[in-house]
Amino acid sequence: MPTTDRASTKDRLLDAAAELFYRDGVSIGVEALCRTAGVSKRSMYQLFASKDEVLAASLERRAPAYERQLTPDDTGTPRERILEVFERLEKASTQPEYRGCPFLSAMVELKDPEHPASVVASATKGRLTEAFRALAELGGARDPQLLARQLTLVFDGASARAGARVETLDGLATATVTALLDAAGVA
Amino acid sequence: MPTTDRASTKDRLLDAAAELFYRDGVSIGVEALCRTAGVSKRSMYQLFASKDEVLAASLERRAPAYERQLTPDDTGTPRERILEVFERLEKASTQPEYRGCPFLSAMVELKDPEHPASVVASATKGRLTEAFRALAELGGARDPQLLARQLTLVFDGASARAGARVETLDGLATATVTALLDAAGVA
Repeated sequence: MPTTDRASTKDRLLDAAAELFYRDGVSIGVEALCRTAGVSKRSMYQLFASKDEVLAASLERRAPAYERQLTPDDTGTPRERILEVFERLEKASTQPEYRGCPFLSAMVELKDPEHPASVVASATKGRLTEAFRALAELGGARDPQLLARQLTLVFDGASARAGARVETLDGLATATVTALLDAAGVA
Repeated sequence: MPTTDRASTKDRLLDAAAELFYRDGVSIGVEALCRTAGVSKRSMYQLFASKDEVLAASLERRAPAYERQLTPDDTGTPRERILEVFERLEKASTQPEYRGCPFLSAMVELKDPEHPASVVASATKGRLTEAFRALAELGGARDPQLLARQLTLVFDGASARAGARVETLDGLATATVTALLDAAGVA
């Protein structure tokens, strides 16, 4: 394949993979994936050694946009910026196609921390915790690392429950985070 | 099949299903399930209309033991009894075979609130929230329903993250719950 065709085939495959895995789960087959992407299995295997690698690469490709979507710009106090992440989560969770955090879902479904896609997912979640930690420190939290882990816990619980349609967040995540920020001394 | 054989075949099938679905996910095939249970596919389909029904029944069968394992006896203050649920969760999550809450995992994997197994899982989680609500009310929480929803959020975030091996709870869930109990006025 010429380089540009190769790039567009790859992009098409990874975009379709991200969408299908998110909507239907990681057990989706190679047939369905290639059919949706409009890519032959031969082309897929020229680009990736296995479906597992496609899944990992599709999460990797999705991560920057996901992080941009969640992370507020640099205006506001650390407390406001932390709360804004959860306001954005609450807003995103009202979309009909919302199925929770794609990175947590992949890990829950794969049940294998060594899977290449779990490794990508874990690193992505780790950056969220690190962003929380930096803001917690800026905000004068008594224990920034503890607060960051608590915020990630709430983030994952909220996204999983909203994604599974057993909870409608509607202020629940922000109320929970407000209590934790107060307890941690982030004014 | 005579009635007793039928009962033992059913129990064997549901026990194997609960274990396999928990360990490997809901996409496990009928072949693997019947092989592990030592039950013929014919017997399985005499007892259940579909794999989906087996999955739902296996969660239903698992629920009472799960609830007994989490729910403390009636001694202690409401605050102590709520904290004990999370102490038990933290302890359970250190087991090597721990993969998170089986009911939340099933919902995350199935991505379909109408699936018979999602319906069972959702009802089971609903009973946990209701137990929290009753204890929150007994403990004089300002808003028992809000506190119960927050506690369930923390429970699900903690179990999902520990199950995915991206978090080692080690006091994290109980510290988070302590802050929320304080904020809700449960002394």
